[in-house]
Amino acid sequence: MFSGALQDLADELALLPGVGPKGASRIAFHILGAPEDEVGRLIEALNAVKEKVRLCERCFNVAEEPLCAVCRDPRRDQTVICVVGEPKDVIAVERTREYHGSYHVLGGAISPIRGIGPDDLHIRELLARLGAEPVQEVILATDPNIEGEATATYLARALRTLEVPVTRLASGLPVGGDLEYADEVTLSRALEGRRSL
Amino acid sequence: MFSGALQDLADELALLPGVGPKGASRIAFHILGAPEDEVGRLIEALNAVKEKVRLCERCFNVAEEPLCAVCRDPRRDQTVICVVGEPKDVIAVERTREYHGSYHVLGGAISPIRGIGPDDLHIRELLARLGAEPVQEVILATDPNIEGEATATYLARALRTLEVPVTRLASGLPVGGDLEYADEVTLSRALEGRRSL
Repeated sequence: MFSGALQDLADELALLPGVGPKGASRIAFHILGAPEDEVGRLIEALNAVKEKVRLCERCFNVAEEPLCAVCRDPRRDQTVICVVGEPKDVIAVERTREYHGSYHVLGGAISPIRGIGPDDLHIRELLARLGAEPVQEVILATDPNIEGEATATYLARALRTLEVPVTRLASGLPVGGDLEYADEVTLSRALEGRRSL
Repeated sequence: MFSGALQDLADELALLPGVGPKGASRIAFHILGAPEDEVGRLIEALNAVKEKVRLCERCFNVAEEPLCAVCRDPRRDQTVICVVGEPKDVIAVERTREYHGSYHVLGGAISPIRGIGPDDLHIRELLARLGAEPVQEVILATDPNIEGEATATYLARALRTLEVPVTRLASGLPVGGDLEYADEVTLSRALEGRRSL
């Protein structure tokens, strides 16, 4: 490119997830032609996220106050804890509109390859919550991949002595999918978890 | 989403070209977790583009000084003008490393549907350049689509009286493509423009 500033912007944009070099240069040109106030709002929004957003003191979900919106909501059943890996997983569960309990965000998953052990996640804080709060059920909703399963297995073992019911999200065939295209592991899980009708 | 600031950022990001709602929320979470200085550099780059980048007084390419880098370069052949639609087309031509002349950026293409006529483009300025500069060749490198072709046709007619050689980029089969998948129009053009070997 010709303009140093445009190239600098494209370089920075290319660091964002899902934005390749072509997309970055397309966005840079869009910014060049965009009205001042649109760019101003984008810059303000970037600043606001870094300044305002923090983690909930209780569940480590994203929040703009000491407690997140779920923890502050008296209509939510605070005796049920859904344990997820990341704040974005909270959004995925919320999108179902079927869950009305609280959350606990681990901040990742156990991964020996990336050097992430149980002490790097908010597991100690989960155990502290279970000691202090009258919890009726812990739902392990970590990702259904190797790291998420390893984390769920670790947690199930760690929670065994606490006499609180621990459940895991069902694995099986995705709704709307084709049996033909299901991978063996998913199909095996679906068979294992079959229900009587 | 839970946090107003995160949602605001995702909303702003979703306005960018090529960024959908899912990509926007992924980028918003990335920003949340990104180091302060990475976000700072992005904000600075956004500001710099709006503050520093302007259009070259001679060719309307992007520039950070009155003249763009190509117009200022004494090694470029300033007697050849490659006419393109947008500044990003300059980048595409530069990427070939085969062109060593100057440019003229029209700032769009003639499009009756969008209400863009010749007077909305930098065509008057091109004619003024041709009157004032010792131009040896004008290469019409507008897009090979309907609007670009219409613009090239208009320019060819407008330049006819000036006795300067006017050429158009060749249309034909893209290198590396399959004959089988070529559309009829491209294949017709490739036939028309066939060369003896």
